[in-house]
Amino acid sequence: MDRLRRHVPMLDWGRSYSRGALSNDLVAALIVTIMLIPQSLAYALLAGLPPEAGLYASIVPILLYAIFGTSRTLAVGPVAVVSLLTASAIGQVAEQGTAGYAVAALTLALLSGGILLLMGVLRLGFLANFLSHPVIAGFITASGILIAISQMKHIFGVSAGGQTLPEMVVSLVANLPQTNWITLALGVFATGFLFAARKYLKPGLRRIGAPPFLADILTKAGPVFAVVATTLAVWQFDLARLGVNIVGEVPQSLPPLTLPGFAPDLLAALLVPALLISIIGFVESMSIAQTLAAKKRQRIDPDQELIGLGTANIGAAFTGGFPVTGGFARSVVNYDAGAETPAAGAFTAIALAIAALTLTPLVHYLPNATLAATIIVAVLSLVDLSILQRTWAYSRADFAAVAVTILVTLGLGVELGVASGVILSVLLHLYKTSRPHVAEVGLVPGTEHFRNIHRHKVETDPTLVTLRVDESLYFVNARYLEDLIQRRVTEGCTIRNVVLQFSAVNAVDYSALESLEAINQRLKDMGVGLHLSEVKGPVMDRLERGHLLEVLNGRVFLSQFDAWQALTEQTAEK
Amino acid sequence: MDRLRRHVPMLDWGRSYSRGALSNDLVAALIVTIMLIPQSLAYALLAGLPPEAGLYASIVPILLYAIFGTSRTLAVGPVAVVSLLTASAIGQVAEQGTAGYAVAALTLALLSGGILLLMGVLRLGFLANFLSHPVIAGFITASGILIAISQMKHIFGVSAGGQTLPEMVVSLVANLPQTNWITLALGVFATGFLFAARKYLKPGLRRIGAPPFLADILTKAGPVFAVVATTLAVWQFDLARLGVNIVGEVPQSLPPLTLPGFAPDLLAALLVPALLISIIGFVESMSIAQTLAAKKRQRIDPDQELIGLGTANIGAAFTGGFPVTGGFARSVVNYDAGAETPAAGAFTAIALAIAALTLTPLVHYLPNATLAATIIVAVLSLVDLSILQRTWAYSRADFAAVAVTILVTLGLGVELGVASGVILSVLLHLYKTSRPHVAEVGLVPGTEHFRNIHRHKVETDPTLVTLRVDESLYFVNARYLEDLIQRRVTEGCTIRNVVLQFSAVNAVDYSALESLEAINQRLKDMGVGLHLSEVKGPVMDRLERGHLLEVLNGRVFLSQFDAWQALTEQTAEK
Repeated sequence: MDRLRRHVPMLDWGRSYSRGALSNDLVAALIVTIMLIPQSLAYALLAGLPPEAGLYASIVPILLYAIFGTSRTLAVGPVAVVSLLTASAIGQVAEQGTAGYAVAALTLALLSGGILLLMGVLRLGFLANFLSHPVIAGFITASGILIAISQMKHIFGVSAGGQTLPEMVVSLVANLPQTNWITLALGVFATGFLFAARKYLKPGLRRIGAPPFLADILTKAGPVFAVVATTLAVWQFDLARLGVNIVGEVPQSLPPLTLPGFAPDLLAALLVPALLISIIGFVESMSIAQTLAAKKRQRIDPDQELIGLGTANIGAAFTGGFPVTGGFARSVVNYDAGAETPAAGAFTAIALAIAALTLTPLVHYLPNATLAATIIVAVLSLVDLSILQRTWAYSRADFAAVAVTILVTLGLGVELGVASGVILSVLLHLYKTSRPHVAEVGLVPGTEHFRNIHRHKVETDPTLVTLRVDESLYFVNARYLEDLIQRRVTEGCTIRNVVLQFSAVNAVDYSALESLEAINQRLKDMGVGLHLSEVKGPVMDRLERGHLLEVLNGRVFLSQFDAWQALTEQTAEK
Repeated sequence: MDRLRRHVPMLDWGRSYSRGALSNDLVAALIVTIMLIPQSLAYALLAGLPPEAGLYASIVPILLYAIFGTSRTLAVGPVAVVSLLTASAIGQVAEQGTAGYAVAALTLALLSGGILLLMGVLRLGFLANFLSHPVIAGFITASGILIAISQMKHIFGVSAGGQTLPEMVVSLVANLPQTNWITLALGVFATGFLFAARKYLKPGLRRIGAPPFLADILTKAGPVFAVVATTLAVWQFDLARLGVNIVGEVPQSLPPLTLPGFAPDLLAALLVPALLISIIGFVESMSIAQTLAAKKRQRIDPDQELIGLGTANIGAAFTGGFPVTGGFARSVVNYDAGAETPAAGAFTAIALAIAALTLTPLVHYLPNATLAATIIVAVLSLVDLSILQRTWAYSRADFAAVAVTILVTLGLGVELGVASGVILSVLLHLYKTSRPHVAEVGLVPGTEHFRNIHRHKVETDPTLVTLRVDESLYFVNARYLEDLIQRRVTEGCTIRNVVLQFSAVNAVDYSALESLEAINQRLKDMGVGLHLSEVKGPVMDRLERGHLLEVLNGRVFLSQFDAWQALTEQTAEK
């Protein structure tokens, strides 16, 4: 039963569900629904799918996450970056607008869900850790730029394509002569209105005396106003006749039962993008969930989150959706609106289902330009170039990872962008640890402490060299240590003993073990003793399984001071 | 001048060259030459090249290494593993026996030399560190098996092909019905003789009273006896007529001037194999050179070694050779024979040049089976499956790296073998550091020391949790720490302060910095303080460039004991 409850967290919170929580969850659901209707349509547009797909992707996935997810307030559905990744992945296997395109989206959601579920069951959540913060920040920023540029065609009312920034800009500029001026006017109005609403509406309403709750809800409904105003304009003046692209016929329906494709070459083509979507979606979702959970001292279980997101995506695959994950904006709104349990998500799903069944005729005249404006305003908040400046100040290696991720994502596409960022981060990390900080230390007079001889006034002994290695020893830095000790010992002819102070060595792998054996043998050949001091418990346990301690031409000292006393006395006696 | 002398080590040892060193070097050169003649022919056969290529590859490269190399006793020339890699690489771009094949070998040597030289000039020697000891050991063992199997066709006198173990075995077995029984007899005799000579000749000679020096030199000349005996047999009984494959016509010539190919697609096709040959050759060579140098308290400069090996390979490219590196057997023989300076190498080169000019007609009737036997006996000493057992005892991760390298090298080929070994080692290392050892510590009563609460009897305080993190913090383990702290703090409701003891944290990258900021923010939201203790100088310098210390909801303590006193007192006051 405990096991079941761990894997179905709903059983946990469901048992103690109270009347108070119910009313809080209902209010939160209403607010989130109002925000989600235009957003869902817009992200479907971004993914290159019919608008209803956005609604469908927000219904069953939310319900499934409410059952299997561990976050109380995470809101799952289509999000900007994942929609961009979806468009990029499907664009490579099918033509937009064809039946194959929609099936590919379902297949991508299924694969992504399957990968997440598998990772959850196999407890592989740590794989997400390969995405460093600089890589994620760079990727999100570059994606935001790509998304905003990709939507400009809807604002201008032209057709344009391209997967990378240069391609998009060239294609857009080439098509600008076909600009539909009425579309542009609507698009500029909607964008301007949304920016202004985001920035000035709430303080403005407060200033004219509106109660905070009302000011808040009116601000969040900003996109709804833009949608209503531009839809009315198009309907009233029959602007569609003048070439303004509109959403058009949207079926009045609950999410349909759909079947993803199982053709092996389709699955093969979408596997890598699905992996990328899974990991990026998971990382984003986790960071939102943890941030919100911490505020209420709740805990998020990463492996269970994988299962929650996995089932949500599989749900999307069979109900006409596309890949989904936890969204930042909607989750924060949900939290702020007072959601207490995942039931809020379930109520949102019900409200959206009602909307899909009854309200879709109302969006017939909604211009695509308005949806594009919604997306642009939403994603520009993702663009944060200050990460470049912050990482530059902190460390050049992290800066390089951000810069390369941004440049490659913009210039060569999203998949290569993430891949090059991850590979570069790993290589830079290995490079940094390949030349560990090694301090030669001496005794601080009158104490038992040892400090760097170049930074402090310390006692030294011409027959004794003590090196403190500030890094775990493994294959990438093993030979560096060999070279370093060889160099140091061939420099000084009086040296009779070398001590390696292991206080900061957390691990010694087999390569490093063999290097230590080689160092030991070479020092022995030179008539120099090799000693270790302050070896940690786990490292000592490990060394005892190898050959080194048997052949060590010296001793293992508990403390560096013991080593100093034994080896300087020993020399004094001679 | 100092700079010149650093890059031309010959200027260093040449100035003090003595009469005693001269006579020692001459004796060593003679012994090495006797050993090298059959070995050079054999490795040319292994590389799929005409026998003279082996001699040529041993002449100019040795001279160039004598000028530019830093090891006093390293002997450079064709070696088994590099010859196998050469055959594997060239086999993919040209048909064996064609002019294109020989040109490809020259091109490979040129590329490899260029890469080594470039790495030396750019001081990129550390790249070799990506080859962990288990990967190298596994690769050498698997290569030894592949080489031995590849030579079996010469022993049976059949033709066979294949790049991988299964292919080779299938091809060999399919061709066994064509076995030439006379060849087989010669091959079995030569193999048996060489094994016996290696194992029993020296102790046998000593037992019958031969002086050690003579016993030693006779043993080393074992291959020469096998060569002479089988050559005489073939010549005497005209066995070539009966289908025994022989070396045949070998030109009497000094190394010719040759021109490698510069066709872009040839260069492109050979680039990756050349990189592999360079790095494997360099690693092998360095480990031999360092081992021998240590015995005489001499120093090997890795970057200058790259230059020495680079020029040697470029020399091979222009004088009819193929890729070369420092060889283990010949270097040890050179060292044991008393070589004092690289002049011994130069004398070896001269002796080999005389042999190439005068002695080549004598090897006309030498059967290939004898050369194959030489190779088989030499490489079986490389096969060391005990590495599997030793790494298994030491660490499962290192064992996995060895096992995968061996299996992939045997099953899928040498390039994939090394690549998968390197990638697996890196991933396993990252995996190990992704879940660092974190100990919760308490005060050892009556001291200022803090130890693991699960291993020792220590004082703790219900309001204070101190975690000692035994690993540098970076992107792969940053989130692990977030989860761990969140879990620990949500467990205990009395916790008011968390201290992270950083005594074993050698670095904090930007991802970890942001994770620490997130941890700080989440703990703050829970009303819990976050403190650091025993932060190392370089880590503190780094943290000061970031945002964390400004927002830290707590203090940075010099020692963990300070933290204990301050935070337990503080709680007591409340």
